[in-house]
Amino acid sequence: MKVAILGGDGFCGWPASLYLSDQGHDVIIVDNLSRRAIDEELGAESLTPIATPEERVAAWKEVTGKEIAFHNFNVAEDYDTLLDFLRTEQPDAVVHFAEQRAAPYSMKNSKNKRYTVDNNTNATNNLLAAIVEADLDIHVVHLGTMGVYGYGTAGMKIPEGYLEIQVMSDEDEAGNKVEPHPIEMEILYPSNPGSIYHMTKVLDQTLFAFYAKNDELRITDLHQGIIWGTTTEQTAKDERLINRFDYDGDYGTVLNRFLMQAAVDYPLTVHGTGGQTRAFIHIRDMVRCIEIALQNPPARGERVKIFNQMTETHRVRDLANLLAEISGAEVANVPNPRKESAENELHVVNETFLDLGLKPTKLADGLLHEVEEVARKYADRADMSKIPARSLWTKSNEAGVPAVTADAK
Amino acid sequence: MKVAILGGDGFCGWPASLYLSDQGHDVIIVDNLSRRAIDEELGAESLTPIATPEERVAAWKEVTGKEIAFHNFNVAEDYDTLLDFLRTEQPDAVVHFAEQRAAPYSMKNSKNKRYTVDNNTNATNNLLAAIVEADLDIHVVHLGTMGVYGYGTAGMKIPEGYLEIQVMSDEDEAGNKVEPHPIEMEILYPSNPGSIYHMTKVLDQTLFAFYAKNDELRITDLHQGIIWGTTTEQTAKDERLINRFDYDGDYGTVLNRFLMQAAVDYPLTVHGTGGQTRAFIHIRDMVRCIEIALQNPPARGERVKIFNQMTETHRVRDLANLLAEISGAEVANVPNPRKESAENELHVVNETFLDLGLKPTKLADGLLHEVEEVARKYADRADMSKIPARSLWTKSNEAGVPAVTADAK
Ligand SMILES: NC(=O)c1ccc[n+]([C@@H]2O[C@H](COP(=O)([O-])OP(=O)(O)OC[C@H]3O[C@@H](n4cnc5c(N)ncnc54)[C@H](O)[C@@H]3O)[C@@H](O)[C@H]2O)c1
Ligand SMILES: NC(=O)c1ccc[n+]([C@@H]2O[C@H](COP(=O)([O-])OP(=O)(O)OC[C@H]3O[C@@H](n4cnc5c(N)ncnc54)[C@H](O)[C@@H]3O)[C@@H](O)[C@H]2O)c1
Repeated sequence: MKVAILGGDGFCGWPASLYLSDQGHDVIIVDNLSRRAIDEELGAESLTPIATPEERVAAWKEVTGKEIAFHNFNVAEDYDTLLDFLRTEQPDAVVHFAEQRAAPYSMKNSKNKRYTVDNNTNATNNLLAAIVEADLDIHVVHLGTMGVYGYGTAGMKIPEGYLEIQVMSDEDEAGNKVEPHPIEMEILYPSNPGSIYHMTKVLDQTLFAFYAKNDELRITDLHQGIIWGTTTEQTAKDERLINRFDYDGDYGTVLNRFLMQAAVDYPLTVHGTGGQTRAFIHIRDMVRCIEIALQNPPARGERVKIFNQMTETHRVRDLANLLAEISGAEVANVPNPRKESAENELHVVNETFLDLGLKPTKLADGLLHEVEEVARKYADRADMSKIPARSLWTKSNEAGVPAVTADAK
Repeated sequence: MKVAILGGDGFCGWPASLYLSDQGHDVIIVDNLSRRAIDEELGAESLTPIATPEERVAAWKEVTGKEIAFHNFNVAEDYDTLLDFLRTEQPDAVVHFAEQRAAPYSMKNSKNKRYTVDNNTNATNNLLAAIVEADLDIHVVHLGTMGVYGYGTAGMKIPEGYLEIQVMSDEDEAGNKVEPHPIEMEILYPSNPGSIYHMTKVLDQTLFAFYAKNDELRITDLHQGIIWGTTTEQTAKDERLINRFDYDGDYGTVLNRFLMQAAVDYPLTVHGTGGQTRAFIHIRDMVRCIEIALQNPPARGERVKIFNQMTETHRVRDLANLLAEISGAEVANVPNPRKESAENELHVVNETFLDLGLKPTKLADGLLHEVEEVARKYADRADMSKIPARSLWTKSNEAGVPAVTADAK
């Protein structure tokens, strides 16, 4: 299968590209390196030393003999280049990772709010409009987030995208008053995003529903949990293939932050009570899920397929305690910079991927390995001042800015 | 009240500005004149000869002694100007009309799809981000559309924005299996937009819900029906105050197109069977609704207020027949360029505005007057070649391109 990977230089996109190439697919990466530019803007850096995209694909060729092409352009801005690219390459599928993906970064200031909305909405709309204009039957696999559901469960298991509901009506089709009776509908699960970033995934979802209905585009939207882990079988083949590892307050995701903090003996920073329950998936399962999704496209005219791409849920404080136990690190409760409930439940349906053959990597199996093989190995590259999360959801969170624990190490 | 009107040079914004000024409010117009530029791009023109914004506000001053300021900038692009403007003027409210609002125009080609999504999403997001950044307590009144509900009714009356639903669950809050039991929720009415334009109003709705929740902005979203009529008491005061009247296939809305077609003896172009039911409101009621909405803002921290701003629903073919009767024009069924059901029902709750004192102008009362005082008066300015709707929703609508009925007059 010929697959274009938009955002293929990123944390998920790079290992997904290597995995798919390894499986024999013809992979082409598109990326404008905006993520690397944000590293510079934030003065932060991947804990792992990542090679340039050119070095990366050259190393892959050297190690495996397989070619991955790399194109540098902006999917949200360079529409004509994108259209040309699709017309020339005619990929069977496009995997769309090319978005600004950090909630804290998206909430930092108006510039970031505007960039996130503009970049993510236009990237997705450009892709869909270009497929329609090129008149190609390309399967789009998009990386969404569990966060569109809103954090927490409303006393039910969160289904895979669509929710069966009943509405009481006291009129008939023609508008006459009748006895109240229930009407059945199936709708997109009502969204309740917790940040500007998460909100853009709701905007994406709206775009997908429209293009699937109007233009019969084939689209799969993966509502992904938080990725943990860094290396896959492929990125481990050569030092130059190493994946990025974000640990800073903006881009570092909760479990990877804990792993790194444990490795450098920094207190594990738990926001608030740590009562937030989140969904997780290991990076090796993520790449496998992408391939499964590619192999199971919807038919033309079918509605958007939505899969929940997560394997476990955990409370943040339980994760912190687990890591503390493994590593001997301390747990530090800091004020929560986000606007969210202190505690929430989260129960999620994730049968589709399991039914299609996914064998999950369990947290219990992988944690220690990640701390030792990755986080500890590159610990001397860590900049402690980048660890605290300083992006506030609202002014009233100001009391919550965690001080830099300078002597934390 | 000091009110900024974004999009105040447009078909709705101009009469709303004059009405609010006439009621004693302090009105400031912001508009980048993109609508006038699109007229040039399409080679189409308002049936009525509209003055420049500068002439318009000068004439208003001359006729009434009241000042309306006019600022020319792009709300979707000139963020710093917008922020400065809000900080300097500190309006009590902003009425947000500044969007690309024609469904056919939005579906014409990728350029227009992209422009519509980019312009409308960024205009709304810029406004909301700027209010947060300026830290001002400004009430935002936005013009949405009945089209976010999807055309048609699912066997119930369409409520004002929010829908009470029941979901059957077989687990309890802690995730234990229990007897199936209903859970009650109130959600945004599930959206089903019929064009890229309508879809941008769903994107807006998502932005509003987020900023109301996270930043406690006070927002009212008016789900407006199709406006008909052209003149208000204020625009009729002087020829230089005249409002625009669109009749072309892109911007002309169905009833105003019929009015104009009737006036020039062009056959009334009914798309498909004309079985589509649409919601309508007269332009004089629209301006009144805006003032009512301004006078009834939500409290800080309250969810977005949503009102259905429409007074009547009609089937398109019934409107055509009514106009044919009044004017003697013929009815011509042409293939439908849109992708939609041939026939639909539409029942809508619109109690809020009626309860707050709106006295609707009935179709039956105003139609003849519009045909004679406006459409017939400027009939010699009409360009018949601009009447057919040529924008197709999909390639498969191609059979549906109506030929130009050159000798229609
Ligand atoms: N990392 C996670 O835990 C996680 C969880 C859920 C969902 N996701 C989703 O998966 C996707 C990838 O996430 P990630 O962690 O790999 O993020 P990342 O920032 O590491 O990768 C995104 C890549 O896309 C590129 N990009 C962004 N905008 C672009 C544009 N306009 N044109 C071209 N390239 C562009 C960036 O340069 C970057 O290389 C995102 O959409 C994210 O929302 C990630
Ligand atoms: N006309 C109707 O029947 C109708 C029905 C339902 C809803 N609405 C809504 O009401 C609003 C106004 O509609 P209208 O019929 O007056 O349309 P219009 O095109 O006549 O007016 C919109 C005005 O906004 C301006 N504008 C657009 N983008 C801008 C930007 N980025 N910066 C500054 N100015 C910008 C345009 O120049 C124009 O003057 C729209 O949001 C529309 O969706 C209209």
